[in-house]
Amino acid sequence: MFNMKFSGNTPIYLQLGYHIKSLILKGFINPHSKLPSTRELSSILGISRNTTMMAYEYLEDEGFLYTKKNKGAFVSDIKISETKVLNIDYSDKISEDARLSESLDIIKTEPKWKKGMISFKSISPDNELFDIEEFKRAFLYRLSDEGSKILNYGYAKGYDKLINYLLGYMEKKGANIEGKDILITNGFTEGFDIVLSTLTSKGDKILCENPTHNTALKIMKLHGLNICSIDINEDGIDINLLKEKLEEENIKIAYMIPSYHNPTGIVMPPEKRIEVYNILRENKVPLIEDGFNEELRYSGSHVTPMVSLCGEGNSVIYIGSFSKILYPGMRIGWILADKALISTLESVKRSRNIHTSFLDQGILYEYLSNGYFEKYLKRIRKIYKDKYEFAIECAKKYIPHEAILGQGGLHIYVRLKNVNARELLKLCYAEGVLFTPGDIFSDKNTEDKSFRLGFSRTSDDEIEKGFKIIGKYVKVLEG
Amino acid sequence: MFNMKFSGNTPIYLQLGYHIKSLILKGFINPHSKLPSTRELSSILGISRNTTMMAYEYLEDEGFLYTKKNKGAFVSDIKISETKVLNIDYSDKISEDARLSESLDIIKTEPKWKKGMISFKSISPDNELFDIEEFKRAFLYRLSDEGSKILNYGYAKGYDKLINYLLGYMEKKGANIEGKDILITNGFTEGFDIVLSTLTSKGDKILCENPTHNTALKIMKLHGLNICSIDINEDGIDINLLKEKLEEENIKIAYMIPSYHNPTGIVMPPEKRIEVYNILRENKVPLIEDGFNEELRYSGSHVTPMVSLCGEGNSVIYIGSFSKILYPGMRIGWILADKALISTLESVKRSRNIHTSFLDQGILYEYLSNGYFEKYLKRIRKIYKDKYEFAIECAKKYIPHEAILGQGGLHIYVRLKNVNARELLKLCYAEGVLFTPGDIFSDKNTEDKSFRLGFSRTSDDEIEKGFKIIGKYVKVLEG
Repeated sequence: MFNMKFSGNTPIYLQLGYHIKSLILKGFINPHSKLPSTRELSSILGISRNTTMMAYEYLEDEGFLYTKKNKGAFVSDIKISETKVLNIDYSDKISEDARLSESLDIIKTEPKWKKGMISFKSISPDNELFDIEEFKRAFLYRLSDEGSKILNYGYAKGYDKLINYLLGYMEKKGANIEGKDILITNGFTEGFDIVLSTLTSKGDKILCENPTHNTALKIMKLHGLNICSIDINEDGIDINLLKEKLEEENIKIAYMIPSYHNPTGIVMPPEKRIEVYNILRENKVPLIEDGFNEELRYSGSHVTPMVSLCGEGNSVIYIGSFSKILYPGMRIGWILADKALISTLESVKRSRNIHTSFLDQGILYEYLSNGYFEKYLKRIRKIYKDKYEFAIECAKKYIPHEAILGQGGLHIYVRLKNVNARELLKLCYAEGVLFTPGDIFSDKNTEDKSFRLGFSRTSDDEIEKGFKIIGKYVKVLEG
Repeated sequence: MFNMKFSGNTPIYLQLGYHIKSLILKGFINPHSKLPSTRELSSILGISRNTTMMAYEYLEDEGFLYTKKNKGAFVSDIKISETKVLNIDYSDKISEDARLSESLDIIKTEPKWKKGMISFKSISPDNELFDIEEFKRAFLYRLSDEGSKILNYGYAKGYDKLINYLLGYMEKKGANIEGKDILITNGFTEGFDIVLSTLTSKGDKILCENPTHNTALKIMKLHGLNICSIDINEDGIDINLLKEKLEEENIKIAYMIPSYHNPTGIVMPPEKRIEVYNILRENKVPLIEDGFNEELRYSGSHVTPMVSLCGEGNSVIYIGSFSKILYPGMRIGWILADKALISTLESVKRSRNIHTSFLDQGILYEYLSNGYFEKYLKRIRKIYKDKYEFAIECAKKYIPHEAILGQGGLHIYVRLKNVNARELLKLCYAEGVLFTPGDIFSDKNTEDKSFRLGFSRTSDDEIEKGFKIIGKYVKVLEG
């Protein structure tokens, strides 16, 4: 009964302790029965007596055994009753909100990558390009500077050093931070969810671009919002449609992605940003600006985010995240907004999960303030720029199209003339090529002939081979 | 204009780049104007020419300047318009849910600690007891094993190695994991929020203990639930009241803290756990079990969690978290529940924040699987046990009471005979002593003469001094 094999990196004494625990819990050893002596057990198992003694000590600490002087170790009276079992059918009990979450969960509904396939679904950064040594250095330095404090509870608002750094960072993008503040969130997703929870109620009207970021669309739907989406042209949102919609509808709030728009990759030009800002301002509609991949500019002059246009005003709420290009696994984003509003958002954040990991915030702060991020950016911009140009070139060459969109970032967007992207995907999938069909980015029926191609984690060979296959089936479907 | 001082750990070239950026963004240098030559600027600032060249290169990469051959560097045409400003009064726009979050946010409403005060509010672990060296080792080892992969996007369900470890951990607590699965969350708070979102809707009836964990109470209120709380006796929930309530009301779900109950510190004895489990089972009511501080047992036999009683059944949903005793700053908890239910919870989790930090999950996995946690536990149990015993002794000695509750953990609970705890707090606060009044743990009026004393981060001297002051004012108020 006591015989067992040891494996893995867990200390032997613990493996033995765990084993005896499970024998007790499963009722194989009765309460108050005597355990073998440590000498006996050590020889059965071929381990040192000291290890067995440590295992017994552990079990005693855990309350699984007690010792009697000169008599040895005995099993404690652990109550494991022979209780009856209840099996609940939870599917009957799932709330409508959770049901909707599940039905909108594209990880569950979209075709899955299988080994050997070429996937253009991902727009995550290529982790092979991360600079692990500088990351380690940032970790070790932050930990030695803060000590164990950084591993204890922090504050809902975030790690103050990171907040101050990001305030400066936003200032360097042209934002006026007077009267504004920052809340750290678990990535863009949580930031957007918290802003919508705080500023909207079921049935409120939200204005956004069509197509738009599918996660944002999902969250708007989960909040029961009335989505008023405006088609976009080659330089971003259609100004006339925007004006019309604002006249027709009582819009509570707007959401836009001015840079490297997801999914189209369009960058709204500076003049148009000013125009859009002014139209929203005149209509007293606050804007949630998604700072998505703003850092991945490959050419042309700097374009300031829309939050920089509102000056000392507070009508733009900016949600930023490095995690689209840097360490997405850490899930860190931030909201820059009106100070009093941030205070309310902070209470909402606290009620959700107390705060975002202080360790991760500390590492990110150290990494950023040492200039590692700028170094990394310089390096990856070169690599992604080449990939981007190659992807555009191949798409134009191999895929019969109506338009190929995208001015930077990690993806491009293809509009087909008369071919349904879902049907195309079916054929391509059978030949091992995956992409993201446009319909998931739209609440309307405008994107069924479009699709997004992410190229960040595919090689040039894969891009060429994959795009050829896509092009072949576009031709087949064009007939 | 270009003159500036350098400070901090950010590389000089970046500090200079940032400075010029801000001059451009603030309109101090006009588009297309010529910048000083690198030679000139280096001599003004007393830095190397190479550093200035790097700063210019950085600004060119960022699109803030362009160079003309043999003519030098010029400012790009960055559009910063003189736009009009809009100031929105967001307080008009806050949703009812967010308003409720804010009003229930005790961090904002309770008296705050000031320097020099003795605080018994905290029940966080003492971070001085964390083993930083083993933490570092876990970080470095996990990173070298996983490489940069662990810093890229992960999965909503969690880091598979940690999930497997925790399934084994729960098995060692006696749980039958057949047909069950685990979701990793940002601590207990998020776990509880996600379970309630998934299994309850506004107006549903939830059964819980009175008093109970104030964050749990807050989340129940934020979900608009109808709270049916049952008073607890010295050994936990009152069985007769429980039976009555289940007969009277159509209870959707129950929530309990069987070990080191917050705030009372009571441990529900094994026999009573079985009785409570059976009553809930007969009424077909699922139980959310809060595994709060279960690990901080100082004496007596092991007591199995209630999830171990449900065997192969699925009527108990266990929410665990080490973060009450180990590295709370990382925010990692888990839900052990029915497999199909976990799959739905996973979709809800994904819609909230994609997933919990994979870096943190990786470190925790490494830390746990190396047996560091058991070593840490062994060490802190001794220290906290002494503190606990000293706190109990001092409370009995100095504070006139009706009852002093608490059988372990990091806090005790005092019931006074005829003194209002809020009034007591006012007097103590003026003399620099803080504690948590009982009313925040109750939806009823039963706890106004009780308060919680956390002792994890106070010295013995502070405990003695603080309790004396509390006792003095109890006597004053008793008259």
